[in-house]
Amino acid sequence: MRDEGEDQAPVRRGRPGYDQETVLRRAIDLFNAQGYDATSMGDLARELGLSKSAIYHHVPSKETLLSAALDEALDGLTAAFDTAVDADPGGDAYQRLRGVVEASVHLLAEHLPAVTLLLRVRGNSAVQLAALERRRAIDEKLTTLVRAAVDEGTLRDDLAPEVISRLLFGMVNSLVEWYRPGGPVAADDLARSVATLAFDGLHPR
Amino acid sequence: MRDEGEDQAPVRRGRPGYDQETVLRRAIDLFNAQGYDATSMGDLARELGLSKSAIYHHVPSKETLLSAALDEALDGLTAAFDTAVDADPGGDAYQRLRGVVEASVHLLAEHLPAVTLLLRVRGNSAVQLAALERRRAIDEKLTTLVRAAVDEGTLRDDLAPEVISRLLFGMVNSLVEWYRPGGPVAADDLARSVATLAFDGLHPR
Repeated sequence: MRDEGEDQAPVRRGRPGYDQETVLRRAIDLFNAQGYDATSMGDLARELGLSKSAIYHHVPSKETLLSAALDEALDGLTAAFDTAVDADPGGDAYQRLRGVVEASVHLLAEHLPAVTLLLRVRGNSAVQLAALERRRAIDEKLTTLVRAAVDEGTLRDDLAPEVISRLLFGMVNSLVEWYRPGGPVAADDLARSVATLAFDGLHPR
Repeated sequence: MRDEGEDQAPVRRGRPGYDQETVLRRAIDLFNAQGYDATSMGDLARELGLSKSAIYHHVPSKETLLSAALDEALDGLTAAFDTAVDADPGGDAYQRLRGVVEASVHLLAEHLPAVTLLLRVRGNSAVQLAALERRRAIDEKLTTLVRAAVDEGTLRDDLAPEVISRLLFGMVNSLVEWYRPGGPVAADDLARSVATLAFDGLHPR
């Protein structure tokens, strides 16, 4: 790829082969591979075969890319949550909770790189702290739903709702360690397996 | 702390306040806080208030510390496994599996920093690759036990044993993200909660 440092195209337009979406995908993969803090704009430029000045025509800063990636994961998780809740508005909290868990697995499978990046964020900047705050809000919604299911008698009441909520998301999040799209386990089967294990248990009834 | 760079004490003896065990604990905490790759022997010396030359009287290399930490976690996991299996030699695979899951939670709670470090290892050196190989062997033992429980009819047979095994360890491993000794959740309760969710399920029978 030739050096296009002289190109004065608007930042958001992108260019053939390197539209904004492609730049974001490659950036997320690079952040996941070598760590966000350890990745420089120079590294990203090299990865894309661009000069260090050309990369700034595509993205104003590394943090813009991080922010877009974290929003992708968090917007997706929020939507997965809302869809599962809206799908059965008159239904019980148990079915909504089960739907949220399955939808979270699907979201993770479809946005694996962005979710992986989200789960590694430790709060080293305002953007990262804002993402952690959004994660906390989603966790709280989950705990509220768990509590509602316990209250309606459809979820066992001998475990703390906060612990249940953490174990559920902990199990879902752990999928980033081994699940790979196109691998031997399909996302549908995985969502069903997670929900079956968590709600029905491994011991046959 | 004064510079003790001139001290020619044998490597393994340690010194008042900085025996081998203390150096290892502080090193593990530092590796977890700022990443193993990003931590230099100079950082560790600074953390301990030692000079860069004095630190080499305590430890021959950074990798020696990593190796000791990974062995601590892996030996512990192996022992937790063997103890749970030995506890009930004539018992069924189901009880052994449930025992292994509970014992793994206890091991994680008691050796949280070493286990946290183990879970972050990505295989960037011979020591790390050897640790990943030991992890894989433990995973395989777990999958074998899951399969034995399915075969004896004490574990549901509509989920793949490999997936069950990954979900179980995924849930246990996710505890490093939030469990803290002395925090609101006791290790005993946590071990029971994990086993209850996984084997009995959240939906009341």
